Amino acid sequence: IAQVLYDFTAEPGNNELTVKEGETLTITNQHIGGGWIEAQNSRGEIGLVPEDYIEISVNDPYNCWWPLCVVSVSSLSLSLFLSFIHHFYCSFIPHISPLYVIQASNGNDPWSVWNADPSGGSNNNWASNPEGTQTGKTAPDPWSSVSQGHPQAYQGPAEDDEWDDEWDDMKSTGGYAESESGDGGGIQRGGAHATSMKISLNKFPGFSKSGPELYLLCKQLTKGKDKLPIYVGEVGPVWFYPETQLDCVVADPKKGSKMYGLKSYIEYQITPSTTNRPVNHRYKHFDWLYERLLDKFGSAIPIPSLPDKQVTGRFEEEFIKMRMERLQGWMSRMCRHPVVSSSEVFQLFLTYKDEKEWKMGKRKAEKDETVGVMIFSTIEPEAPDIDLIEVDQKCEQFSRFTKAMDDGVKEILTVGHEHWKRCTGPLPKEYQRIGKAFQNLSSVFNSSGYQGESTLTDAMTAAGKTYEEIAQMFAEQPKKDLHFLMETNNEYKGLLGCFPDTIGVHKAAIDKVKEGDKLVATSKITPHEKVTMAKRVSVMSYALQAEMNHFHSNRIYDYNRVMQLYLEEQVKFYETIAAKLRQAHGQFTTM
Amino acid sequence: IAQVLYDFTAEPGNNELTVKEGETLTITNQHIGGGWIEAQNSRGEIGLVPEDYIEISVNDPYNCWWPLCVVSVSSLSLSLFLSFIHHFYCSFIPHISPLYVIQASNGNDPWSVWNADPSGGSNNNWASNPEGTQTGKTAPDPWSSVSQGHPQAYQGPAEDDEWDDEWDDMKSTGGYAESESGDGGGIQRGGAHATSMKISLNKFPGFSKSGPELYLLCKQLTKGKDKLPIYVGEVGPVWFYPETQLDCVVADPKKGSKMYGLKSYIEYQITPSTTNRPVNHRYKHFDWLYERLLDKFGSAIPIPSLPDKQVTGRFEEEFIKMRMERLQGWMSRMCRHPVVSSSEVFQLFLTYKDEKEWKMGKRKAEKDETVGVMIFSTIEPEAPDIDLIEVDQKCEQFSRFTKAMDDGVKEILTVGHEHWKRCTGPLPKEYQRIGKAFQNLSSVFNSSGYQGESTLTDAMTAAGKTYEEIAQMFAEQPKKDLHFLMETNNEYKGLLGCFPDTIGVHKAAIDKVKEGDKLVATSKITPHEKVTMAKRVSVMSYALQAEMNHFHSNRIYDYNRVMQLYLEEQVKFYETIAAKLRQAHGQFTTM
Repeated sequence: IAQVLYDFTAEPGNNELTVKEGETLTITNQHIGGGWIEAQNSRGEIGLVPEDYIEISVNDPYNCWWPLCVVSVSSLSLSLFLSFIHHFYCSFIPHISPLYVIQASNGNDPWSVWNADPSGGSNNNWASNPEGTQTGKTAPDPWSSVSQGHPQAYQGPAEDDEWDDEWDDMKSTGGYAESESGDGGGIQRGGAHATSMKISLNKFPGFSKSGPELYLLCKQLTKGKDKLPIYVGEVGPVWFYPETQLDCVVADPKKGSKMYGLKSYIEYQITPSTTNRPVNHRYKHFDWLYERLLDKFGSAIPIPSLPDKQVTGRFEEEFIKMRMERLQGWMSRMCRHPVVSSSEVFQLFLTYKDEKEWKMGKRKAEKDETVGVMIFSTIEPEAPDIDLIEVDQKCEQFSRFTKAMDDGVKEILTVGHEHWKRCTGPLPKEYQRIGKAFQNLSSVFNSSGYQGESTLTDAMTAAGKTYEEIAQMFAEQPKKDLHFLMETNNEYKGLLGCFPDTIGVHKAAIDKVKEGDKLVATSKITPHEKVTMAKRVSVMSYALQAEMNHFHSNRIYDYNRVMQLYLEEQVKFYETIAAKLRQAHGQFTTM
Repeated sequence: IAQVLYDFTAEPGNNELTVKEGETLTITNQHIGGGWIEAQNSRGEIGLVPEDYIEISVNDPYNCWWPLCVVSVSSLSLSLFLSFIHHFYCSFIPHISPLYVIQASNGNDPWSVWNADPSGGSNNNWASNPEGTQTGKTAPDPWSSVSQGHPQAYQGPAEDDEWDDEWDDMKSTGGYAESESGDGGGIQRGGAHATSMKISLNKFPGFSKSGPELYLLCKQLTKGKDKLPIYVGEVGPVWFYPETQLDCVVADPKKGSKMYGLKSYIEYQITPSTTNRPVNHRYKHFDWLYERLLDKFGSAIPIPSLPDKQVTGRFEEEFIKMRMERLQGWMSRMCRHPVVSSSEVFQLFLTYKDEKEWKMGKRKAEKDETVGVMIFSTIEPEAPDIDLIEVDQKCEQFSRFTKAMDDGVKEILTVGHEHWKRCTGPLPKEYQRIGKAFQNLSSVFNSSGYQGESTLTDAMTAAGKTYEEIAQMFAEQPKKDLHFLMETNNEYKGLLGCFPDTIGVHKAAIDKVKEGDKLVATSKITPHEKVTMAKRVSVMSYALQAEMNHFHSNRIYDYNRVMQLYLEEQVKFYETIAAKLRQAHGQFTTM
């Protein structure tokens, strides 16, 4: 039932099966997970084979969660809606704790850690570093770290939250040790390919691993599997969208421990809408997934950073809830992306079964060679080539837009941060003092010895208590509305922070194609390579346009949703205050 | 038609008429004003006679505005209502500029000048200075100035508002020059009696002019005219309340000038509800009236200070409006007081006709000898004497109450002042920034080149504009509600600041009566004088109780009214915000 696409040599002791290109296999268990399939060869031998080394018949009913129909943007909206509902209203789903959306109950501003710089000064790096590299997931301001080359998140030791030692066994892989050395902005974190990538890039000085020449001048592109088609829809180039939107629920954080209890960690339960079978992952698994997605898709698709390792929340429970909420947001966004959500590595993460399978899947994912700019080799636009002028214009347009939106989003974050502080700090204090002042005067009046003023004093006491209630309402309101506005904008800040890299790759490619004639003249490339480069930059432009259209469609949905939610809650808030005050007013004598 | 009560010798050249006690006169013109009446004696001579030197037939229809019927507290409330309506809603009265209640349009806090000390430290002066003296009208904190003895308002030159030289001809009388020297807290400002009062008090060292011995040990009390009856009503001793509540409207400030335009001043138009005939007065006339009322009634009735000479308002127009509003408040309160409003000097002020008559009235008022503690000699309680223990208890109770209320009022002022600053300063700025941030993001979205997002961007722009409107609403709200709450509490702060003096006089009298036996034993007083003292301290107690009941009744009315007004406007405010936000919410796509 399956055709082998590439040779695969089994590693001894791992229950794997060695197969040859062209061989036919019978699938004995497709639900191993982790990118592996159990298959039997013609000789009756059974073993595990990497899923993407073989081609399973399209009509296989078990494969239905990845359907092949083209979706329009309007049906996308519907499915986005469903996924977004999860994001905001997860607490309605039974197996999620109602504490899910609650954070720092002492009124602390969870955004204080990423207080945006409203001056926008660092944003000039955009223009001066068009070929900026991926900058590590935790840099607080991706626009500034592009030029600094030292992701700020790695400036200090990362080990201060002892109870959730995310990094314990990552060090052994060497991946993070490399990052932590911080030797220049061009270093790609983690992954087995780092070394080979660096070597292959050295022939184009000044270009990092993400430099586009690797793809533009590649002799032979990957064979025809895992192709990413691009269609031209109403809004222009669009990715292929599955009919059913994948989604998942992150919930039920549980403390685990290892090394005889010396080290403890938190496991989150992730339940994909496809299997409805929950899997458990630690933060470090998310982090590993992030690294793989960044490696594989980062040149074409902005892969937003994971929530910071250190999220605000002084208490363990708050910290866990806050991280879980943000992991949910990140997962929802990844699920929404048709290319990311259908990727093997993402599926591996969602279908985790046991440690052994997981480790196999990891090894395979880390061996993936279609990473960096090579992702463009898998993209197949079903449309005629675009000329360089248009490619250039589109790239410029997206660059301007994302830069402007980044400024706008940061402005909202700065203002929102200020507003949060005021709503939870001085404002409730003030309303409480007003309430107390009314009540104090009322109790003085009560001591007057003058008869018949209890109507006044009762009413004044009630008015005072009303203002104390209003104080409480002010303090609690940001969690009900501003929180989501901030979270959404924070997510977009993260997403937008990926665009300088994505766009930088395109700009570098455009520049390379522009100097095509010169390169031919100096025999650096052949005339045929020049033609190939122009074709391939057109593919890159389609990918960028599809990604921008994906971004716009999501953006419109997200902002429409979050603005509605914000205003809805604001209306309720002011109406409740008005109603409370009206009741207090009614207690005074009408004259 | 009129009987002469006391001898009166005409001053030459003033058109006055010399009359003898017991003589019968025919009134030829009762509407001279200023406390004067034109009368003809039996010899046919016509001239002016002081109104209170003669007794006019009770049934005289022209005298009807001062009727003799007893009013209950409930009918008082109704009339208070009418007068208070003036105070808050004066702008509805046609001949008052609609700008009346508008002040500093730049959002300045007019209360910043009298920012109360919330610590209450200075209030300890209450206990340590029971025999405190009248402290001058402009001392910002009457509780502290009692001990300092130097009314703060006189520390600097008072002439810095050149355009309204209030004091120009006051200097010539010597009254203010004396005050300005600030030689001790016991100096009574202005007035022709200052010298004689000081002499008469010297025989009781340690007592100021307001010391009660003058009255307690006075050999002969004033004859039976202008008696102030006290009745015992439902709530206890009460003043005699006229059936019709006097009220007046202060409006239409006009600039006048003198000395060939070298000096200019502002005249306010005062229209009493009795005559409905407007009279014009400058601030210095109000100030003169205040001095007379303080002199005459200050020992028994708290006479609140006039609004400060320097009211906040950087622009002339604002300054005038603010002062006018506060003069209105002061006049309304004086009109509401049955004893003050029916006094000759107050009537003189309200019925001003020409300069000549005014000067005559002034001279007569300044000659009045029933001032200071001697006001008690005119009080006639229609009830049995109160024993010393009860007098003492009542006095203590009122002292505690007024002190506690003073603290409560100052707390509201402090809190309200803070709230005013926040509502006109940081809050609108913040809402404006939120509004701008939404609009900026919306215009970024508009530049996306992605089709069909105008619904979102229009809605976001509308939401942004809504927050800008809310910013404006926040900035303007304090003028609509907090203003009246503050003005009322400020008035009460002024009133309460008079109580230490009033109560001090009572405490001193009680102490004197307590040492009655000792004084008799050391032959300082006769046993008869001791009995007289006890009777007179009972009269004083009735006066204090009547005044406290007047205060309580007004307080209940005022606070009920101002709290209702405040909450009413607050409800409107929050409802308007909710409605605006609801409309903004409606512009987003429903999903």
